[in-house]
Amino acid sequence: MENKGISQAVIGRLPRYFRYLGELKDQGIERVSSQELSDIMKVTASQIRQDFNNFGGFGQQGYGYKVEYLYGEIGKILGLDQTHNLIIIGAGNLGQALANYMNFERRGFLFRGIFDNNPALYGRRIRDMEVLPMKELSSFVRENAIDIAVLTIPKNCAVEVAEELVKEGIRGIWNFAHVDLNVPPDVQVENVHLSDSLMKLTYNINRYETHYDA
Amino acid sequence: MENKGISQAVIGRLPRYFRYLGELKDQGIERVSSQELSDIMKVTASQIRQDFNNFGGFGQQGYGYKVEYLYGEIGKILGLDQTHNLIIIGAGNLGQALANYMNFERRGFLFRGIFDNNPALYGRRIRDMEVLPMKELSSFVRENAIDIAVLTIPKNCAVEVAEELVKEGIRGIWNFAHVDLNVPPDVQVENVHLSDSLMKLTYNINRYETHYDA
Repeated sequence: MENKGISQAVIGRLPRYFRYLGELKDQGIERVSSQELSDIMKVTASQIRQDFNNFGGFGQQGYGYKVEYLYGEIGKILGLDQTHNLIIIGAGNLGQALANYMNFERRGFLFRGIFDNNPALYGRRIRDMEVLPMKELSSFVRENAIDIAVLTIPKNCAVEVAEELVKEGIRGIWNFAHVDLNVPPDVQVENVHLSDSLMKLTYNINRYETHYDA
Repeated sequence: MENKGISQAVIGRLPRYFRYLGELKDQGIERVSSQELSDIMKVTASQIRQDFNNFGGFGQQGYGYKVEYLYGEIGKILGLDQTHNLIIIGAGNLGQALANYMNFERRGFLFRGIFDNNPALYGRRIRDMEVLPMKELSSFVRENAIDIAVLTIPKNCAVEVAEELVKEGIRGIWNFAHVDLNVPPDVQVENVHLSDSLMKLTYNINRYETHYDA
């Protein structure tokens, strides 16, 4: 899914801007120049200005950006001024960890339920939610207006579950299953392929040592 | 850290090629054309050829690629023909989940230990490893020739721990802490900022609905 005109690279940097601006805000800093932001974020000032120009610019150059305003605007662009109903599918190690570890509510994600197909887990409480059986998934998604499903299930069932979610009107899938999902363009998918990320790390270790003979 | 000539975008696709080729191999498929690979992976055939040309090409066009050979070669490029000694720092929800969930050994990652600064966790066994106190970290990294550290600790201590690891000769950091680490160029960092990824998802949901009025 392409978003008109704005590259995924720019979009990928927005949460990082948001994170840094949140820190400046927490420190009570009111204004920041693109040069200062550039120094903190290790991105060129011209890159920052270019990125912000995609969204109308946000502030006067030379005079700097108002931190709180900029933080709020980027938050809105990221959709964080809205709440999203979220469920986790897969109550194994990773699903449980995400339920407990992610501070979902802080960003407007309302954790509504967790599902698994292992009867041994049914009824077990994870972050105050009972694990529900998969056969209740469809009706639950529909009746609770679930926007986002987090998939932490094995790849061999992920494709089928994604199809079921699409049918029930899911808007986004945060996919940790090691498979690329095929969904219609009105459903957004963000993949977190952890082993791909770890392989990228070993590539860079390896390549560095080949080239620089470290 | 830039790797001479090869962009991080190409590098980012390598694990995905590796994953798909592994599946073809498991299915007993011996040869695949760039067109077939293109159909499975939803990347253009010309993109595939361009990507592979960065590494010498791998096979005859028209005739197709030998799956097992290509899988092996890409594995070598990714450094997966070598073993890496790995530790996890942070035995909270996420650290424990990664220890239990990731099939580290399958790709040559040898899980050597897990550390935390919470005395309540010391001695607790996670995937057959006792949680060790942070004060043993430096000597452990040195004495066990640890290559890779997985950081699943809060951001306020991640920077300091990364410095300690660098001093002890770590080669790579797989960073889940919500902070960008500053390390010398001979240490590779791969970030997994989970909340950034979730924000990217809401951005895409939001943007899609603004543009297409879904």
